[in-house]
Amino acid sequence: MKEIRIFSPATVANVACGFDVLGFCLDTIGDEMVIRKTDHKGIRITKIEGYNLPYEAEQNVAGVSALAMYNDLQPDCGFEIEIYKRIKPGSGIGSSSASAAGSVFGMNVLLGQPLNKTQLTYFAMKGEALASQCEHADNLAPAIFGGFTLVKSVKPLQILELPTPTDLYATLIHPQIEIKTADSRAILPEAVPLQNAIIQWANVGSLVHALHTSDYDLIKDSLNDVIIERFRKQLIPHFDAVKTAVLKAGALGCAISGSGPSIFALSKSKATAKSVEEAMKNVYSKTDILFETYVSKINTEGIRVI
Amino acid sequence: MKEIRIFSPATVANVACGFDVLGFCLDTIGDEMVIRKTDHKGIRITKIEGYNLPYEAEQNVAGVSALAMYNDLQPDCGFEIEIYKRIKPGSGIGSSSASAAGSVFGMNVLLGQPLNKTQLTYFAMKGEALASQCEHADNLAPAIFGGFTLVKSVKPLQILELPTPTDLYATLIHPQIEIKTADSRAILPEAVPLQNAIIQWANVGSLVHALHTSDYDLIKDSLNDVIIERFRKQLIPHFDAVKTAVLKAGALGCAISGSGPSIFALSKSKATAKSVEEAMKNVYSKTDILFETYVSKINTEGIRVI
Repeated sequence: MKEIRIFSPATVANVACGFDVLGFCLDTIGDEMVIRKTDHKGIRITKIEGYNLPYEAEQNVAGVSALAMYNDLQPDCGFEIEIYKRIKPGSGIGSSSASAAGSVFGMNVLLGQPLNKTQLTYFAMKGEALASQCEHADNLAPAIFGGFTLVKSVKPLQILELPTPTDLYATLIHPQIEIKTADSRAILPEAVPLQNAIIQWANVGSLVHALHTSDYDLIKDSLNDVIIERFRKQLIPHFDAVKTAVLKAGALGCAISGSGPSIFALSKSKATAKSVEEAMKNVYSKTDILFETYVSKINTEGIRVI
Repeated sequence: MKEIRIFSPATVANVACGFDVLGFCLDTIGDEMVIRKTDHKGIRITKIEGYNLPYEAEQNVAGVSALAMYNDLQPDCGFEIEIYKRIKPGSGIGSSSASAAGSVFGMNVLLGQPLNKTQLTYFAMKGEALASQCEHADNLAPAIFGGFTLVKSVKPLQILELPTPTDLYATLIHPQIEIKTADSRAILPEAVPLQNAIIQWANVGSLVHALHTSDYDLIKDSLNDVIIERFRKQLIPHFDAVKTAVLKAGALGCAISGSGPSIFALSKSKATAKSVEEAMKNVYSKTDILFETYVSKINTEGIRVI
């Protein structure tokens, strides 16, 4: 096998209560990439479609993660990467993670799978760091492992695969506004009230339990963030209106996807997820902000060869 | 049935990372109580052995919880309560919870089980509040439900039963010193660094996952408290020495039981739990502080009729 085409999915980080640690993987939104083994050594990005991104491997997240893995493994070949970018950079649904994870996933397949998924995540984090100025894995882990993931720690890298209840669907709205990463970070407090932290870790614990027991009522009760949302929602116009409408439409929960501006909801059943999409559209179609919406089953496989 | 004798177990609250929400139930330490149905109405405490506690129902935690339930149900009978107190008050292993839970559990059995376990916990909290000046359930829930519990919220009261891996054993040491509840509260900060809170909720999430998957290595990795311990251990002489010795002896983790002064460890296998007990004894036998130690399987049943 000299060439593969892969689907590298969008992902949702934080998942309401699990700031910096929880994430899940989407199915209907993602990039495609072609990875090709070549005789001439090195990493080359030979095609980029969809968005205007740098071709220099050292300047491109997919290139940086590929180089990190390549320099470590030192294989007897090189690789060409084609990127068909569908996930808009800066949307808050793991655009850079899809690129960073896709290149190392594809190379690993072509090399006969010498690395496990945690090792792939490790190299992908090098690319992610180019985009976000720090090594984190809360979007990478669900992209590479699929389903729901908990990044227990980054150093050492420890990723837990959580179970995914069968009927869980995600709905997303991406308002086409720009939030600077620096702003979404700067708005967070350095310290939080202990009482709120207790509520948050009760929610994280109960969400993990709810995923294990497919308890949708408990998923609903657990999808609450009392720490981060109050700050970051200020950067997302109409967040409260969307959340209110979405919960009224039957969603189990609704929160900011990653650092925004995308907003996600989780629902039991595709039909409810579709109603939730309508509710989201209703709010934003009354504004002058352009938006995209998506409905997706939780993708339990993660990145896949297509 | 007019009279039953029950075993009301000691419990460990907080469980390292799960301050205010997690707890588990012990098997070899606990009070005994006799609950007797009588023709004359009301709640009477007719016997107390072991420690000097008030006989007036309104001044005794077992009496207060019993009265709360009695006044709500208004049964056509009264109850007498005998308390054979084995758990020293103020030891940090749920002494007041054992009393508060025992009376309502016993009355419920004699009345033909009109209440479920969450309802029993609700009434037991009224007694617990007499001892600790606030309504909480982190010792009551494991005493009543058995095993590991997560108190997701107090208002409304929502208790999750977590699975208990088969080979898990607890070791405890109770140094016979007094820590005033007011001191153990006052020493805690009102705000905590967000970065530490993230580590804490990653640990809570991974501990819940580890209990579901019987992953002892992950239990070990998760039993870490980066928020509370650093403050409260100042009130417990030789805490660091005990923890170091206990981990060296093979324990999965070691932390303060409740607000102390008891220290608990969890181990995989009874043999390791016994070695851990020796390690604890070695540290404290070199001091002039009196102490008791205990080894116990996790009690998955909770309070039981004997």
